[in-house]
Amino acid sequence: MEFRLIQPLIDTALSEDLTYGDATASGILGPDIRCSLNLVQRRDGVVAGLPVAQMVFEALDPEVEFKMLVQDGDYVNAGTQLASIRGRAVKMVMAERTALNFMMRLGGIASMTHQLVAEARKVNDRVRITDTRKTTPGLRALEKYAVRLGGGHNHRFCLADMAMLKDNHLALLGKARISLKDAVERIRQHNHHGIKIEIEVDRLDQIDEVIASGADAILLDNMTPEQLRQAVQHIQGKLVVEASGGVTLEMVRPIAETGVDLISVGSLTHSPRSMDIGLDYF
Amino acid sequence: MEFRLIQPLIDTALSEDLTYGDATASGILGPDIRCSLNLVQRRDGVVAGLPVAQMVFEALDPEVEFKMLVQDGDYVNAGTQLASIRGRAVKMVMAERTALNFMMRLGGIASMTHQLVAEARKVNDRVRITDTRKTTPGLRALEKYAVRLGGGHNHRFCLADMAMLKDNHLALLGKARISLKDAVERIRQHNHHGIKIEIEVDRLDQIDEVIASGADAILLDNMTPEQLRQAVQHIQGKLVVEASGGVTLEMVRPIAETGVDLISVGSLTHSPRSMDIGLDYF
Amino acid sequence: MEFRLIQPLIDTALSEDLTYGDATASGILGPDIRCSLNLVQRRDGVVAGLPVAQMVFEALDPEVEFKMLVQDGDYVNAGTQLASIRGRAVKMVMAERTALNFMMRLGGIASMTHQLVAEARKVNDRVRITDTRKTTPGLRALEKYAVRLGGGHNHRFCLADMAMLKDNHLALLGKARISLKDAVERIRQHNHHGIKIEIEVDRLDQIDEVIASGADAILLDNMTPEQLRQAVQHIQGKLVVEASGGVTLEMVRPIAETGVDLISVGSLTHSPRSMDIGLDYF
Amino acid sequence: MEFRLIQPLIDTALSEDLTYGDATASGILGPDIRCSLNLVQRRDGVVAGLPVAQMVFEALDPEVEFKMLVQDGDYVNAGTQLASIRGRAVKMVMAERTALNFMMRLGGIASMTHQLVAEARKVNDRVRITDTRKTTPGLRALEKYAVRLGGGHNHRFCLADMAMLKDNHLALLGKARISLKDAVERIRQHNHHGIKIEIEVDRLDQIDEVIASGADAILLDNMTPEQLRQAVQHIQGKLVVEASGGVTLEMVRPIAETGVDLISVGSLTHSPRSMDIGLDYF
Amino acid sequence: MEFRLIQPLIDTALSEDLTYGDATASGILGPDIRCSLNLVQRRDGVVAGLPVAQMVFEALDPEVEFKMLVQDGDYVNAGTQLASIRGRAVKMVMAERTALNFMMRLGGIASMTHQLVAEARKVNDRVRITDTRKTTPGLRALEKYAVRLGGGHNHRFCLADMAMLKDNHLALLGKARISLKDAVERIRQHNHHGIKIEIEVDRLDQIDEVIASGADAILLDNMTPEQLRQAVQHIQGKLVVEASGGVTLEMVRPIAETGVDLISVGSLTHSPRSMDIGLDYF
Amino acid sequence: MEFRLIQPLIDTALSEDLTYGDATASGILGPDIRCSLNLVQRRDGVVAGLPVAQMVFEALDPEVEFKMLVQDGDYVNAGTQLASIRGRAVKMVMAERTALNFMMRLGGIASMTHQLVAEARKVNDRVRITDTRKTTPGLRALEKYAVRLGGGHNHRFCLADMAMLKDNHLALLGKARISLKDAVERIRQHNHHGIKIEIEVDRLDQIDEVIASGADAILLDNMTPEQLRQAVQHIQGKLVVEASGGVTLEMVRPIAETGVDLISVGSLTHSPRSMDIGLDYF
Repeated sequence: MEFRLIQPLIDTALSEDLTYGDATASGILGPDIRCSLNLVQRRDGVVAGLPVAQMVFEALDPEVEFKMLVQDGDYVNAGTQLASIRGRAVKMVMAERTALNFMMRLGGIASMTHQLVAEARKVNDRVRITDTRKTTPGLRALEKYAVRLGGGHNHRFCLADMAMLKDNHLALLGKARISLKDAVERIRQHNHHGIKIEIEVDRLDQIDEVIASGADAILLDNMTPEQLRQAVQHIQGKLVVEASGGVTLEMVRPIAETGVDLISVGSLTHSPRSMDIGLDYF
Repeated sequence: MEFRLIQPLIDTALSEDLTYGDATASGILGPDIRCSLNLVQRRDGVVAGLPVAQMVFEALDPEVEFKMLVQDGDYVNAGTQLASIRGRAVKMVMAERTALNFMMRLGGIASMTHQLVAEARKVNDRVRITDTRKTTPGLRALEKYAVRLGGGHNHRFCLADMAMLKDNHLALLGKARISLKDAVERIRQHNHHGIKIEIEVDRLDQIDEVIASGADAILLDNMTPEQLRQAVQHIQGKLVVEASGGVTLEMVRPIAETGVDLISVGSLTHSPRSMDIGLDYF
Repeated sequence: MEFRLIQPLIDTALSEDLTYGDATASGILGPDIRCSLNLVQRRDGVVAGLPVAQMVFEALDPEVEFKMLVQDGDYVNAGTQLASIRGRAVKMVMAERTALNFMMRLGGIASMTHQLVAEARKVNDRVRITDTRKTTPGLRALEKYAVRLGGGHNHRFCLADMAMLKDNHLALLGKARISLKDAVERIRQHNHHGIKIEIEVDRLDQIDEVIASGADAILLDNMTPEQLRQAVQHIQGKLVVEASGGVTLEMVRPIAETGVDLISVGSLTHSPRSMDIGLDYF
Repeated sequence: MEFRLIQPLIDTALSEDLTYGDATASGILGPDIRCSLNLVQRRDGVVAGLPVAQMVFEALDPEVEFKMLVQDGDYVNAGTQLASIRGRAVKMVMAERTALNFMMRLGGIASMTHQLVAEARKVNDRVRITDTRKTTPGLRALEKYAVRLGGGHNHRFCLADMAMLKDNHLALLGKARISLKDAVERIRQHNHHGIKIEIEVDRLDQIDEVIASGADAILLDNMTPEQLRQAVQHIQGKLVVEASGGVTLEMVRPIAETGVDLISVGSLTHSPRSMDIGLDYF
Repeated sequence: MEFRLIQPLIDTALSEDLTYGDATASGILGPDIRCSLNLVQRRDGVVAGLPVAQMVFEALDPEVEFKMLVQDGDYVNAGTQLASIRGRAVKMVMAERTALNFMMRLGGIASMTHQLVAEARKVNDRVRITDTRKTTPGLRALEKYAVRLGGGHNHRFCLADMAMLKDNHLALLGKARISLKDAVERIRQHNHHGIKIEIEVDRLDQIDEVIASGADAILLDNMTPEQLRQAVQHIQGKLVVEASGGVTLEMVRPIAETGVDLISVGSLTHSPRSMDIGLDYF
Repeated sequence: MEFRLIQPLIDTALSEDLTYGDATASGILGPDIRCSLNLVQRRDGVVAGLPVAQMVFEALDPEVEFKMLVQDGDYVNAGTQLASIRGRAVKMVMAERTALNFMMRLGGIASMTHQLVAEARKVNDRVRITDTRKTTPGLRALEKYAVRLGGGHNHRFCLADMAMLKDNHLALLGKARISLKDAVERIRQHNHHGIKIEIEVDRLDQIDEVIASGADAILLDNMTPEQLRQAVQHIQGKLVVEASGGVTLEMVRPIAETGVDLISVGSLTHSPRSMDIGLDYF
């Protein structure tokens, strides 16, 4: 994660919250009053976003002392102090909400990923839990970083770094009477030699055509564990096999047992439960 | 909601997903192939973000036809078609994920708000369900718009448009030996005459000092319904009364029954469940 | 004033003046020649913008020594040295005009505010002299900061942080046959609970309707001191009372004597006389 | 004036005023109510900024009808209607302040320039009234455009498009023991062949050295009309002659009579009195 | 190529050339004079950048008529008219240099690519001529588009969409005592399943280790055709084989004859000869 | 050259290459591994862009040690070490390509300029080799800086800092029946007094009209050395004389011999051969 590239996002977030200033703090706190803060996690889970929080505090108070007591990616229990912060009080109260908003979201993603990975690992020590492109506008790099912190893997980052023929593409190919094999060939011809191709199917009888097309991977969408098992056996390692569709904490284990290579989970980034994190002043 | 102001966010979101282009569509779809899409909601709930989706599609295909079949704020059932879209196929598949990412998040917020409001309305036809500043960095205006679409009210937008003395401020005041009354006076003096002041407490015995301070509103944090009821009776309308802290769908009704004026809910914007929305090509 | 948020404005101002470089200095001054500068105020008045000037010099010479000898908000006499600066000569001459352009404008606003406040204080020790939204595009936060430095108060910052029904709104309400009372109710319903409402009138016979509407404040536009006095007596503290309209240095005292709470002065930010400030090299 | 280049400034100005929206209009005006506005000048003077105002209204309501009834640069009397506008009411009240803020400042500059030019023309039909680099940060191009509308001429735009050796440069040259002639030579060598060189003096006995240096123009700073007259006679057309320093409406005529080529006036852009312009809804 | 994403680059380029305006055209051409222009290619080669030129003209004159007579990617002879343009004269002369600067560079790249591809095709109808990351800062997407227009293929776009272990990485691995096999395994583990891995070698005896490492492709740097031929025979299709290093028009044919899969050419984007294109007014 | 102003370009260039990160380095290099790099020039020529390279490395690793061993503008032989760099390995490999892309282009321009200047100096010790406005979009300031480093001179920077009537303007003047003399007069009237005027001709019989027009300089386009010689004799120093059109290394000497003042060379910035520069890790 190259944090420098998110500096504009941090400035945008601070501008959202400050607009013209802070009606509360500016009236009661002189510029020279300093204070100490403890950043504390209030629920068990994976820490994510500490360097972002540091950037937020430093943006408003370049001389803040921000000591990390744990690292991004650590799993900690409720009550663990994550960082010790000391700086100008008037700036600390201006920065805290923005810093926490980042950490709550990223910690929520990392912790949810961690849960799913732990569940899958019980039955399959090789399967990858991956994210999708269902990320929050403007936060993709950060959210995909949080998935990695939780022990998950990323799926492709964007439309440019891997080709995927999904249901909508297949519908368009059908209308244009282009075969799957031709489509794969066109994509290979259009792109650089490092681009892999994955094809989505939702029926078992579509698999053979995908294998024959020369694709690198197959996405089995919304299949039952039993269907997935059949698919894995049928494919016999000729393709990387990804399962997707409504993956919950309960379903991840039976899906992992089928032997698929990847389980992609949209809710990791579109519906995580935020981490509970607080700041105590003293 | 002034949508023009979010154009930079839309461009950022598109750049995240496109970076250098679309490895899939550019190889298989000629620039002149046009197609039709149905935008369909797949779960009951409140529609939010249709004008944003339209801006996303128009950004990539200025000549797209985007017909809204419902309006932002409408409650619709699963299966309802929200919009009919027709444009260049190669642009439609490039825009769809970004458009859906906006709508899923905003629809989730609006629908969760709608549920809480409905629940509260059963026992209190005047109480406001409000958001907080726990919003996603970069999306605050949109997320607060979604809360309004769901029948909720906004709380203050930012640090500048209302003063709130929260626990951390009170700790700092204590250290600096500034009384609550003095703090309220300083804030009134520092700010323009339109700024109201709210003070957070977590114990009943703090209420009298807040009333005496001349504040406009009080935030009762993490109190039981019984405590809230006592507080409301004690305050007798001298302050606007807000309840906050771990408000769930189950708890909103007993809290509303206590007669508080506002119930603020952080999870509306930090942990909503995304709306399920799809695009069908034909 | 959160100066970090004006860094983009400083960069824009420097780009305006430098575009491709400095045709004079680059030809005659080697990069290593250092020099000292005295920043001197040449007219009595309030100092404003020293931290901005420092940011301008630091932008071009990160190692410049910039020692403030007075503080923003200090009233100083003509001839007072404001700061002592030492840095690379080629950068100092590139930065000086931009630094002075900021300080001249802000010092002019602060000093004009100071004059009006002093005049009003002779007869009323409680009245506020306030600015308006008639600020220079791009400089609002800075200009409102300068008003505060001069002893004035801000009025609302923007359209979002307070509601004001002005003559144009009243005309539109009239056409739509919406009563003032209904309008106030709609605005309260639409906005968060911290938003106050002010209504503009230009005749005494409109005041009762404003009181009855439930508004928080009233703006008496273009009234004579005698009319203002009658209005204040009639309102009896039920509303915050603001006077506006062609307030000059001569008029501010008779207006203040009427007992109004606020006197808003557009010319503070739209037509201040610039402060005279110079830089002496040695 | 290439107005496209100021689009970012317009967006910044609108964001300053809107931040999260309009607390007044959004609550009382439905999105489909349309209204008409008359843009009226309330003081005699030169119109400036009509295309900017149009851009502001169009930014918020792309379908607004904005009919100019006069043109930028026209001199009009108090009461003249400048434009007729019709659009969505909720957008019109959001745009008006920003549009007027631009026009008031630009109209003030153009009108003040017009006065000075008219005064100078009474005694000298060739002298140019020019601006300086003492412009408002972020508005230089617009302010210099307003000077031209008022019949004035621009001085150099920035540090890059002309070389000027001012008092501070001369002090630095003295310290470095570089002669004026050498400095001029170095500047010619460093810059492209289209760059002219002007040198500032404040004593008559410095003029000969300037002529000998090969400079193109001379700036006579803070001289009396009598000194200026002597200087003009002495220079005999060998240099373009500019007068500067505390030029007021009273002083411009005696200075123009001396026969100088240019009279530069900093207050044109740093201290103009804003034009009085209003918007009437109907 | 998604042209919308380069709008900021076009605005930057126009600002570079206009800064405060056009000293020539604004003085002599009224705003309403219209003229016609022929865009003509003056050397044989591939056309590239017509849509960019159109965007440049439209930026300054939204009503310009820009009719393309050929398409991007067409090979045309010297003298061919590429487009017919009609618009406001004062805007046309302001836009022309910027439009041509884009087209000259892109046309130069496309035409050089075309030459190399044609030369390689004489002996190998399957080999790809590819670009590198040696692109002009800010223009990568456009320059890689131009390579495709010339019949070439892109190599990876950026550091994120493919892994390459180059000489510097190998040096670092050596210092850290990490084997190539381990490095490949770590890269696969760190990245998503669509990322391919290529390894650079400059000696034939390194090839076996690359094959054994599990990499997808090998880059043979600075080898003679004879060495390349031996390498291709030795690799036997187990890896995609890329040749690089000082590829000139003379060398591309003997390299292509060796049977390599890709020939990457840095000079395509770092040292192309600009296309000669002119604009004739009439 | 004010390097601060190119910080946005550096950020853009880094974003182009990093997008979401570095698929290679992030997987194999821990964040704390440090390494040393030698920046080496591999062809004789002028060094250009070292401060830019330093900014690139510092952007990704603020604690990098970057020691310049030569200075921008030095002529060095192949094999010369330009700088010694030490920093975090994972950041060094992310920054190197971007740093080199800047230096290769700027070094190429500076070195080509140096060659042409050296050639011209053999026969004319006063003639200037200048660039044109045919620069790469976004890089004009840097490219014109590189020309100066190579011993060349800049021509005008942009449309604003000098007036040039080129063939297309003359065609438009002809259509509008405006004489050259009138055009010159209008341009002088429209612009500030520091703006010089140059007129382009391509026939000897046009020269007298240019002299008579009052222009400052003349551009003789595409003339033979013999024609240039006649022109120079005819003009007799009344105008600055510039030659342009297809100036190659072979042609620069015979053109310089004709006694023209400037020789402008578009290919300096549109078609330079990149400098060969490498980075050795150890």
